[in-house]
Amino acid sequence: MSIAIAAAPQQVLQQYKQIRTQTEHICQPLEPEDTVVQPIVDVSPPKWHMAHTSWFFETFLLKPHLPGYKEFHPQYGYLFNSYYNSVGSRVQRDQRGTLTRPPLRDIYTFRQHIDEHMQKLLQSISDDKLAALMPVLQLGLQHEQQHQELLITDIKYILSTNPMLPTYSSQSSKQPVKAAKANYLEVPDGVYTIGYQGNDFCFDNELGVHEVLLEDFAVMNRLVTNGEYLEFIQDGGYQDFRHWLDEGLAMVRKDNLQAPLYWLEQEGEWHRFTMHGLQKVDMNEPVTHISFYEAYAYANWAGKRLLTEFEWEAASQVYPPATGNFVENNILEPTAADATKEGMQQLYGDAWEWTYSAYHPYPGFTKAPGAIGEYNGKFMLNQMVLRGGSCATPESHIRTTYRNFFHPDKRWQYNGIRLASK
Amino acid sequence: MSIAIAAAPQQVLQQYKQIRTQTEHICQPLEPEDTVVQPIVDVSPPKWHMAHTSWFFETFLLKPHLPGYKEFHPQYGYLFNSYYNSVGSRVQRDQRGTLTRPPLRDIYTFRQHIDEHMQKLLQSISDDKLAALMPVLQLGLQHEQQHQELLITDIKYILSTNPMLPTYSSQSSKQPVKAAKANYLEVPDGVYTIGYQGNDFCFDNELGVHEVLLEDFAVMNRLVTNGEYLEFIQDGGYQDFRHWLDEGLAMVRKDNLQAPLYWLEQEGEWHRFTMHGLQKVDMNEPVTHISFYEAYAYANWAGKRLLTEFEWEAASQVYPPATGNFVENNILEPTAADATKEGMQQLYGDAWEWTYSAYHPYPGFTKAPGAIGEYNGKFMLNQMVLRGGSCATPESHIRTTYRNFFHPDKRWQYNGIRLASK
Amino acid sequence: MSIAIAAAPQQVLQQYKQIRTQTEHICQPLEPEDTVVQPIVDVSPPKWHMAHTSWFFETFLLKPHLPGYKEFHPQYGYLFNSYYNSVGSRVQRDQRGTLTRPPLRDIYTFRQHIDEHMQKLLQSISDDKLAALMPVLQLGLQHEQQHQELLITDIKYILSTNPMLPTYSSQSSKQPVKAAKANYLEVPDGVYTIGYQGNDFCFDNELGVHEVLLEDFAVMNRLVTNGEYLEFIQDGGYQDFRHWLDEGLAMVRKDNLQAPLYWLEQEGEWHRFTMHGLQKVDMNEPVTHISFYEAYAYANWAGKRLLTEFEWEAASQVYPPATGNFVENNILEPTAADATKEGMQQLYGDAWEWTYSAYHPYPGFTKAPGAIGEYNGKFMLNQMVLRGGSCATPESHIRTTYRNFFHPDKRWQYNGIRLASK
Amino acid sequence: MSIAIAAAPQQVLQQYKQIRTQTEHICQPLEPEDTVVQPIVDVSPPKWHMAHTSWFFETFLLKPHLPGYKEFHPQYGYLFNSYYNSVGSRVQRDQRGTLTRPPLRDIYTFRQHIDEHMQKLLQSISDDKLAALMPVLQLGLQHEQQHQELLITDIKYILSTNPMLPTYSSQSSKQPVKAAKANYLEVPDGVYTIGYQGNDFCFDNELGVHEVLLEDFAVMNRLVTNGEYLEFIQDGGYQDFRHWLDEGLAMVRKDNLQAPLYWLEQEGEWHRFTMHGLQKVDMNEPVTHISFYEAYAYANWAGKRLLTEFEWEAASQVYPPATGNFVENNILEPTAADATKEGMQQLYGDAWEWTYSAYHPYPGFTKAPGAIGEYNGKFMLNQMVLRGGSCATPESHIRTTYRNFFHPDKRWQYNGIRLASK
Repeated sequence: MSIAIAAAPQQVLQQYKQIRTQTEHICQPLEPEDTVVQPIVDVSPPKWHMAHTSWFFETFLLKPHLPGYKEFHPQYGYLFNSYYNSVGSRVQRDQRGTLTRPPLRDIYTFRQHIDEHMQKLLQSISDDKLAALMPVLQLGLQHEQQHQELLITDIKYILSTNPMLPTYSSQSSKQPVKAAKANYLEVPDGVYTIGYQGNDFCFDNELGVHEVLLEDFAVMNRLVTNGEYLEFIQDGGYQDFRHWLDEGLAMVRKDNLQAPLYWLEQEGEWHRFTMHGLQKVDMNEPVTHISFYEAYAYANWAGKRLLTEFEWEAASQVYPPATGNFVENNILEPTAADATKEGMQQLYGDAWEWTYSAYHPYPGFTKAPGAIGEYNGKFMLNQMVLRGGSCATPESHIRTTYRNFFHPDKRWQYNGIRLASK
Repeated sequence: MSIAIAAAPQQVLQQYKQIRTQTEHICQPLEPEDTVVQPIVDVSPPKWHMAHTSWFFETFLLKPHLPGYKEFHPQYGYLFNSYYNSVGSRVQRDQRGTLTRPPLRDIYTFRQHIDEHMQKLLQSISDDKLAALMPVLQLGLQHEQQHQELLITDIKYILSTNPMLPTYSSQSSKQPVKAAKANYLEVPDGVYTIGYQGNDFCFDNELGVHEVLLEDFAVMNRLVTNGEYLEFIQDGGYQDFRHWLDEGLAMVRKDNLQAPLYWLEQEGEWHRFTMHGLQKVDMNEPVTHISFYEAYAYANWAGKRLLTEFEWEAASQVYPPATGNFVENNILEPTAADATKEGMQQLYGDAWEWTYSAYHPYPGFTKAPGAIGEYNGKFMLNQMVLRGGSCATPESHIRTTYRNFFHPDKRWQYNGIRLASK
Repeated sequence: MSIAIAAAPQQVLQQYKQIRTQTEHICQPLEPEDTVVQPIVDVSPPKWHMAHTSWFFETFLLKPHLPGYKEFHPQYGYLFNSYYNSVGSRVQRDQRGTLTRPPLRDIYTFRQHIDEHMQKLLQSISDDKLAALMPVLQLGLQHEQQHQELLITDIKYILSTNPMLPTYSSQSSKQPVKAAKANYLEVPDGVYTIGYQGNDFCFDNELGVHEVLLEDFAVMNRLVTNGEYLEFIQDGGYQDFRHWLDEGLAMVRKDNLQAPLYWLEQEGEWHRFTMHGLQKVDMNEPVTHISFYEAYAYANWAGKRLLTEFEWEAASQVYPPATGNFVENNILEPTAADATKEGMQQLYGDAWEWTYSAYHPYPGFTKAPGAIGEYNGKFMLNQMVLRGGSCATPESHIRTTYRNFFHPDKRWQYNGIRLASK
Repeated sequence: MSIAIAAAPQQVLQQYKQIRTQTEHICQPLEPEDTVVQPIVDVSPPKWHMAHTSWFFETFLLKPHLPGYKEFHPQYGYLFNSYYNSVGSRVQRDQRGTLTRPPLRDIYTFRQHIDEHMQKLLQSISDDKLAALMPVLQLGLQHEQQHQELLITDIKYILSTNPMLPTYSSQSSKQPVKAAKANYLEVPDGVYTIGYQGNDFCFDNELGVHEVLLEDFAVMNRLVTNGEYLEFIQDGGYQDFRHWLDEGLAMVRKDNLQAPLYWLEQEGEWHRFTMHGLQKVDMNEPVTHISFYEAYAYANWAGKRLLTEFEWEAASQVYPPATGNFVENNILEPTAADATKEGMQQLYGDAWEWTYSAYHPYPGFTKAPGAIGEYNGKFMLNQMVLRGGSCATPESHIRTTYRNFFHPDKRWQYNGIRLASK
């Protein structure tokens, strides 16, 4: 799953505290009532996320490695296991939204209990032992960061289903900005090395470093904007079968799709539900909350195509991502590409980029033994790879080799479009 | 819907306060988290019940009749209308469990707002005007009592789905009691008058007083007990197709039914989830939480039959119900029939009695004009009549002519069995 | 199930032959391909009907009563049992339409085999034995007549789903006839005796003769016409929630109902698919192929109501049905009420009349022992009673006490509307 | 879609006749009743296949290119279009099994009509014009061959659902043969050229010739046998979550899978339904009728993996396929690998080999303009590539570059397993 990383206990503890605190920071604006529900099966109750990430530390670190540790509650394992068959039975995923107990305040107590004991573990552990536990510990922290992003997208979805359209946080008034003009940057043909080669943490799905042979292509310098996507809508893009994959067209017709998720037409003008309430669609910002099907159809309509994940990774080698709009910005929505800058933008942050690559194992992929091995491998079918992180991703969590993955119909994540030509 | 009732404003106000306070009393033990969810479509979130009953007073009394009244919130009508097409669009019934906002404390504020203005209305109103409003006012109060019963059954269901099996309230230790022996009491043939003939409130579905001609029959002196029902289970009753209606058998097989709702076998012994936690099944208490299908199959197996609603009403005329185990007892579960008493027991309270009568209109039934007319009539198909009230029914709410109704597969209400012979 | 009937073997054999031949006569215009499919679960493949009715004679008469009889094929029992749990397992009802084998010609051979052996049985049997078997034999014949009606309605449905709109039979050109004017005939209050009191065959559901006390009412002299129903449509009847039962409205909205089954608007004019192809709707003919929900909504809209089954039977005693348009007419569609006649018309034939009575047992109803007891009793829930027979019913099959029953959403039978007032 | 192929009209006509006759040859053993049904949505009625392939020639060749040609029937376009949105509306795919008309004999007449006019077209056409039409003509013939394979698999499925387990054709008694021993053959690393480079027909999805860089690997010399697969079953393979992809496990549990499709345990012994009736499972024959999920789980259990489609194509370059068990053998089931032969076997024929490659476009893939462009591209998601053809594939239809594709849960095709190691 991950490679061992040398680090001083004190440093690790600080990292641990920072990440754990951030989870609670995200949930701070919520009412207890907000933390219970599961309006669609993809969305988990925030209460569940907060408990599940703690369960991970209890199960894989405290119980096996802190002498004398007693589990916080005998039923929390059953309640807050997500999908690890190795660890026993669990609440069915689609039943998470009926669990009103334990109440939110108990979950906070649970988190505090875990944090105190993790501190105890990290303060009492030898350097050797710490080195041995680092892979699992790092996995626990990365795992919590992944759930931080899910917390944001799930909270957004939960609030959006409410006819009162509640606001997650207020936003200082922003100046409309003109987006950088679109152009295409060349990536030469050649052999590119794919996968993680560093010495820090990575997921198992980034391993299996291997070479791929790519033909030359050109890649858009930024993400597709709402304004560009609106042209597709206004050109009848959702109605014209020629742009769509067959299963995408079926979804469009069944769900009567007309625009990205969260878009709402009011008196002839498009608005979108954001973390800061309902706003007019800003035409310079990247389009987001679209399915792979919509990304594909848009690219087809535009006479372009999506990148493969290998092309994306090659492009990120040729045009190394500088920085991006991550969760640390606290904007929680994509922002316009900077019109004053030349070259590649938005490879990192703003919106995950759908690639036309199925989420399959790299050559030589092997699962870790035991429960940890259930982390990634068993999901390697029917899902598409997304790259680059979003405005809800922690900057410390992302890498150019990072492979996110979702089913092609999923829209509730901050997903966007970057085009390739040739 | 109801007939006018003369009453002093002060008296009415007192009744209003008593009933409204009782709703909040029922919800008092709940966490905010408990009040949000809807684990099955039949169950509404407690928060919704509390708001919907208040919406009724706002919509049908305050807005039309209190000069200068302003609605509490412009969207509450959309959120808390249940099924009145006349009053406009509304949240779909199966979507109630995604509404995390308004939070519970806002609902309490809403209730307080309604109560203050209802007090204002009742204190400022002329006697004539009060007499004119009494039907709707009484309907509002009866409606709130109906939702009080639903609150109890819905809370029970919500808590039961939680693997932690939380307790609604603790119970002082009870002494096991032996139930009265079963026997059958004669009801002579003849013409019986059916329907409400008094001067107090009744629902429209009790009107259309008419005569029915009945053959003589005999009626069980109490409800069927858990012990008697267990014999049916142990005799393979759930497996033997001969006892069942065809659609009942289909339900048994599809849902793999083996016992009443809330029954749980642990180490060879039957337990049941109650408002006071998981308890061993008390063999002397009436069986409850069964569908019509199970009541029918049990009667068939026992070589008896269920009563029609007309027979039930005739029996209640021949053996007038004294009192019963109602919600005022605060036991919230059925109790054993008194072994020291002779004659008819449990016609009132403990458990609603499934009759083999479809919920159809009485001769001459007419709907009230306007929204109030949607109260009962449009549900008069595919549902079965239940009689007598339960341990969750307010005593002041029930009458011998009262017609409750549910689809034959419903098990989450306190429903039980009384047999007829001949 | 039925009462014993004295009859000479020769007479019985002739009746047997007449009824069996009629089944094949109905199927004569079909292609083998037509006899296989099951476009909706309600519709059974014609091949299946032909075999199932033969299976009945084999199972309940030949195997137990004809010495030395060997079953035609060991698997036909599994294939052609409909719903008799007592007789063993069977093909699931919704899987009948995948059974391509045995081919139609084998079914004809099967029928011939049964007929030869039934002839043998009837020719060799003693009068005493015949008398003992008469109830089951009569049941087999009545059962086959019921399936003859289903054959016609199922064939109609099968042909109607085909975009080529094939014709079952051609029709000599008919003269448009003006329907009799609607008026209402009085039925006095009093005690009426309900149920079958004769000495011929009847179903068990007609037994339990009992008295009912009825208030006086008035009954329409004929069925509601297409023209009258069209007024309801044109008045927005399908859109106005006030006319509908709640579950009816849900069906209208879910299935987007706008008119009776088989109605099709072409260039501004209503047509309907008939056994003789697509025809313009004849405004003088009775409306048919409607659900109970539509019958109820129409009656509500018209300011009238439907009859109960007891009122219908009382009306048929006060105004004894003369004759009607039955399957023997070979018209296979309802015809206009005779404008030259006074008094009651169409109580028999043309279209089954939905009553507002649930299909429940009469007092004292008992099921026959064994498999025959599964004939009627287990369906006594959630279905509504229809009375009087239709243009697809054999005249020799119907009685004033005959109780047909279907779920309230069913439209593929020849069902119509008669109104009551008061 | 395809590249032009020079050929003499006479030669083409002969090829046309051969292929068209073969379709009818496949359907010859069927009853008319067999040709109507659609037991699952994947399976189309044989009657439909016969008409649809003819519709293709009518739509894309006769109507545009044969002067004066009149379509056979104005509604056949609506009835027998499969999925070409460009060509207009059509019968919904899941409704094909309700179309009893036109009867089978009309379809034969339709085929004859098409054949006569195709002959007329081919005999009257100039060489230039023929060259221009060759791509579409070849596509029509290849298309018909694809439907020939579907006809066989669909007929097998239709017969298998019948409790009488009818036989498609009898089989001369076969001698049990021992399969070749399994071993692994090396494929060196390097750059391989993928895609069709010849001058004959190929599908558009084989174009976009490109190079891929492969690491070295080893490939099994034959397909996995029933005997080997049985070890997986007997080792609890279907119950052990560790072997499965998450969605595969969900399918196994939902459908209670225990063995390949068509396997049936009778008195402790495994049988399988074949085109020649129910037979004992031959342990030396290749396992078939399995989903991708099962292939994946088997490989996992065996400590191996599946090949990618690029590895498969590279292997076929290193070990060129000689011949195989194709439909021309008329065995219609896979046969054992020859124990007397060394080296690679069964790359062609017997069973399609699931690869761990999603069915995506090759670099530079472009759709043909118009309706023909809907042939392949719009299905390029959520499906897995299979290679090599099966015992139901025409030998003249297959190539090493041929890409078949199905959703990973599909089992009714002749799909099998070849393993890779390293």
